[in-house]
Amino acid sequence: MPPRTPLLDRVTQPADLKNLGIHQLQQLAGELRAEVIDAVAETGGHLGASLGVVELTVAIHHVFDAPDDKIVWDVGHQVYPHKILTGRRDRIRSLRKGGGLSGFSKRSESVYDPFGAAHASTSISAALGFAVARDLKGGSNKVVAVIGDGAMTGGMAFEGLNNAGAMCNKLVVVLNDNEMSIAPPVGAMARYLSTLISSRSFRSIRELGIHMAERFPQPMKLAARRADEYARSILSGGTIFEQLGFFYVGPIDGHDISSLVTILRNVRDDIAEGPIIVHALTRKGKGFPPAESSHDKYHGIGKFDAKTGTLHKSPQTAPSYTSVFAASLIRAARKDNRIVAITAAMPSGTGLDRFAAEFPERTFDVGLAEQHAVTFAAGLSAEGLRPFAAIYSTFLQRAFDQIVHDVAIQELPVRFAIDRAGYVGADGQTHCGAFDLTYLCCLPGFVVMAPSDEAELVHMVKTAVEHDEGPIAFRYPRGAGTGVQLPTEARRLEIGEGRVVREGRQVAILSIGSRLADCLAARRNLEALGISTTVADARFAKPLDKDLIEQLARDHELLITVEEASIGGFSAQVAHLMSDSGLLDFPVRLRSMFMPDRFLDHDQPQRQVEQAGLSAPHIVTRVLQALNVSSTLSASA
Amino acid sequence: MPPRTPLLDRVTQPADLKNLGIHQLQQLAGELRAEVIDAVAETGGHLGASLGVVELTVAIHHVFDAPDDKIVWDVGHQVYPHKILTGRRDRIRSLRKGGGLSGFSKRSESVYDPFGAAHASTSISAALGFAVARDLKGGSNKVVAVIGDGAMTGGMAFEGLNNAGAMCNKLVVVLNDNEMSIAPPVGAMARYLSTLISSRSFRSIRELGIHMAERFPQPMKLAARRADEYARSILSGGTIFEQLGFFYVGPIDGHDISSLVTILRNVRDDIAEGPIIVHALTRKGKGFPPAESSHDKYHGIGKFDAKTGTLHKSPQTAPSYTSVFAASLIRAARKDNRIVAITAAMPSGTGLDRFAAEFPERTFDVGLAEQHAVTFAAGLSAEGLRPFAAIYSTFLQRAFDQIVHDVAIQELPVRFAIDRAGYVGADGQTHCGAFDLTYLCCLPGFVVMAPSDEAELVHMVKTAVEHDEGPIAFRYPRGAGTGVQLPTEARRLEIGEGRVVREGRQVAILSIGSRLADCLAARRNLEALGISTTVADARFAKPLDKDLIEQLARDHELLITVEEASIGGFSAQVAHLMSDSGLLDFPVRLRSMFMPDRFLDHDQPQRQVEQAGLSAPHIVTRVLQALNVSSTLSASA
Repeated sequence: MPPRTPLLDRVTQPADLKNLGIHQLQQLAGELRAEVIDAVAETGGHLGASLGVVELTVAIHHVFDAPDDKIVWDVGHQVYPHKILTGRRDRIRSLRKGGGLSGFSKRSESVYDPFGAAHASTSISAALGFAVARDLKGGSNKVVAVIGDGAMTGGMAFEGLNNAGAMCNKLVVVLNDNEMSIAPPVGAMARYLSTLISSRSFRSIRELGIHMAERFPQPMKLAARRADEYARSILSGGTIFEQLGFFYVGPIDGHDISSLVTILRNVRDDIAEGPIIVHALTRKGKGFPPAESSHDKYHGIGKFDAKTGTLHKSPQTAPSYTSVFAASLIRAARKDNRIVAITAAMPSGTGLDRFAAEFPERTFDVGLAEQHAVTFAAGLSAEGLRPFAAIYSTFLQRAFDQIVHDVAIQELPVRFAIDRAGYVGADGQTHCGAFDLTYLCCLPGFVVMAPSDEAELVHMVKTAVEHDEGPIAFRYPRGAGTGVQLPTEARRLEIGEGRVVREGRQVAILSIGSRLADCLAARRNLEALGISTTVADARFAKPLDKDLIEQLARDHELLITVEEASIGGFSAQVAHLMSDSGLLDFPVRLRSMFMPDRFLDHDQPQRQVEQAGLSAPHIVTRVLQALNVSSTLSASA
Repeated sequence: MPPRTPLLDRVTQPADLKNLGIHQLQQLAGELRAEVIDAVAETGGHLGASLGVVELTVAIHHVFDAPDDKIVWDVGHQVYPHKILTGRRDRIRSLRKGGGLSGFSKRSESVYDPFGAAHASTSISAALGFAVARDLKGGSNKVVAVIGDGAMTGGMAFEGLNNAGAMCNKLVVVLNDNEMSIAPPVGAMARYLSTLISSRSFRSIRELGIHMAERFPQPMKLAARRADEYARSILSGGTIFEQLGFFYVGPIDGHDISSLVTILRNVRDDIAEGPIIVHALTRKGKGFPPAESSHDKYHGIGKFDAKTGTLHKSPQTAPSYTSVFAASLIRAARKDNRIVAITAAMPSGTGLDRFAAEFPERTFDVGLAEQHAVTFAAGLSAEGLRPFAAIYSTFLQRAFDQIVHDVAIQELPVRFAIDRAGYVGADGQTHCGAFDLTYLCCLPGFVVMAPSDEAELVHMVKTAVEHDEGPIAFRYPRGAGTGVQLPTEARRLEIGEGRVVREGRQVAILSIGSRLADCLAARRNLEALGISTTVADARFAKPLDKDLIEQLARDHELLITVEEASIGGFSAQVAHLMSDSGLLDFPVRLRSMFMPDRFLDHDQPQRQVEQAGLSAPHIVTRVLQALNVSSTLSASA
């Protein structure tokens, strides 16, 4: 039974909120919350964050005029209420499903999403771009960025504040402070915000809101400037934001629609130059008791019972790569106190929460700050520790320069545990771990591994632990392993040594990482067609197993590489090894299967692999195509 | 005539400074300054920054015990005085020369360089790593990071502050505030620091220094904790640093050795937990009038007259790529007011100072903040402007995730003008523009160009201006162009269209970017050997000119790609196009010449190209080797 939503049923676009009074807006917020809960119960998704901004979303769309006014949501995982109010309610139960709505803000999905986001801390920079463009073009629309306190710990947000604070362009930043990004936020900024909140009461701020309204009557005319200065001195003495050039308003209760509307309307109509920051306090999971009382506030969840919040259990599967990594690292750390672990605000997603439970002093959650995480790890390794930086593949992109400049050039043995490599399913384009092999394999001295199953991951953790000669990385997929037996004893792999998994004579499939299962399935089909097929697991994208590849090239008509990664990484290493050592001058043919040159929309991971053309049937087809190119070779086949 | 330096002559390691009194330290600083000026007059280099920290360097090495104590210099271009005091004086006149000292801090060069740097804003993160490692290992050494006010605008520095400020590890950050990074600093932090300085007098701080000394007698014992809290409340009420959890001391005169020694000694001996920031004011170029009065404070300069400061003029050469880019962009912007330009604190190095002179309202210097620069540009382009983000190749690495997440995924037409691509000479490993083709060519929808000479650059600027379909980048080398005639009219290139420069029959050399001149030289040698050689200029690393490559593959025995970039970019595009379309199944052989898999030390650019094996003779050798592999082919050659 979907919830009764009589008021919401009349809203098809934000303009429909314009003439509602405060009581109606409050009722609308209640209906909107019920709708979000009901929809996410069906689809899974980022529930907690969306519930926290229901009132904020209603107030923003009541006060501002989207899509002329630009609302830029940071991270974008809290936009479900926004999507419902901006003409996408009819598709809200398709959230995160193939062909359905994205779980994040997305330009191609709606004019109400002027800037997409799924990584953190980008909104102030983008919004400043919108504001500057508006002023250059002589426009008069408003620009609003909504950023969480977690995202505010990312250096990029500071860069945006630093630049915007020195400019005179009008810009509104709403700091959505729920004291919780994915994990509870860490760092000095979080502590500072807490202090700031505890030193000011809501009540007095409400009074100040009324005070502001009195002081900014419309039209504001000449008095405005002085009034503005006066208000600044009252409201903002010495906050970090004021020191960085922002007019600070807050903290205000982010669930009190009446206050929000009053304040946002004043902020909207303020004619003074420069940026304004509105500090709103919200509760993640607000209004849904099971979420409010959960330690992670139902951050990213599966389907659940909309009444009780009981999560529908997924069928029992093999242990996840994440948990195998964590267990392996914990086992190694018991014997080696040089092992330390670093996460950038993802203790649970990376499995390091379990490591932290056993080794709290050796676990470092540095906040949403991948750049700092990597260089901090480099500093630790320079002193002889064995740091593991556990960061998702796409988020590690944010530390690429630190990987080059602080780790690779200095040959420091930082260990990179790269989770969410390859297609990730419902999180879509922005979270797809496509580029890691490419941006790591080009770096001199880097060792880059990818396990074909969770048993191999166990060995790779051990290999990384013992590799003190330089940087080493291993990338592994989201989700469950293949279900193989886990080894009782972790084994150190020889650096650069691959393995033949199945022997054959005509075709050689060289896989790296998790595509191995499909390669083996492809082999079964090929053998059935009478095509004798070798399957090898490279294990190392860099350095390559030259002997293995030379043997595969010499002994087969066709060598085909398969990986779930972009062009330029493993396949490039193999192609250049072969072409530049003359191996391609042999009769062997080379083909490479990697991700296609486009960003795939969210869908089930296996569907994405199929869309990418990387599943077992595609491998078979590719082999047959390659063999059929020359009639001589076909004849021999 | 080298300067007379009797005191400095007795210093071979920092320990030699321990027993010097304040007057002797002052004399030593004078001698050190003279030595730096005399050496850099001979070598060229980063003079201004080094002169600004002479007293700071002397005071730090007097008070702290390197190499046990770790001194981490941010950016590392200000370390010449540090190198002279740490056993490298005998090689100081080899600075930035092949085989000589690096122009930056470098781990492999000295135990006194615990962490190398040449990019900005990394020092706090690295130093925190050292401090945490020390505490885990139970050590007692001190850790000092020295960071400039310019580097403090980088988001990574904020990430480091945010993390360090919330931890209890002892760490000293010296903020070397010279109000000048490379250009005068921009942004709210710079303005804030100025306000901070003007609100506090040196005198009172000196008194506070003495005050601190009285309050922190050795041994400090039980009173220390309270005294610390007391001192905090006096010194640091409400600075940003204090709000972020640092104990703030300052501002102090960074050229007053007596004050510096007093303050640093107190800071060293403080036993309270947590990080301390010492805010020292310095003057870039201090003590050398020609530098002090120059607008860029002799930031990075060539050889000069040590007495007068007169710069030795380089022989007249062709216009630099940088200046051709700037002139082209200015010409286009006169006709198109949608064109705007963004620099991350490099207005002069990128040529955008000239653009800014004509279009001040359309130029944005966002500070040392490449991440913000790129996403800000994305915001501008989302509103229909035509932004050019002009960023050096290695510095753009810092915005890789923004390029993926904010630009590529959203298909926004941000134009990337990538200067300093390829080998850069004296700036060495850290500034080598090696990876841009690799990290851009893997991105769906990106157009990636590289001009073979400055005339081509003119056309590529025009091509980028008119490309509104998605992101587009062009990368060009440091220094002078080839001296070709510049076109009177810029022409829009067809996206993905290369060109045949010389026709031949047996060998095809496919070049991208500035290696074309060597390819043509190689052709002359090959023709002399009777080997008919085609030379083509790909122009586009992505998308490739498929027709051109197919033609080259079909009509030649050997196709060899040549580029001044790492593995995984252009060559990978070509190799996979050929292998996956079956072109490699033809008799043609493929070879690829790209940067070797190691970081090259600083040297002259041409020497680096030779070390890399990418010069004309290497191309000839590679062709001959490839042709000789098979006797059949050799015979036909």
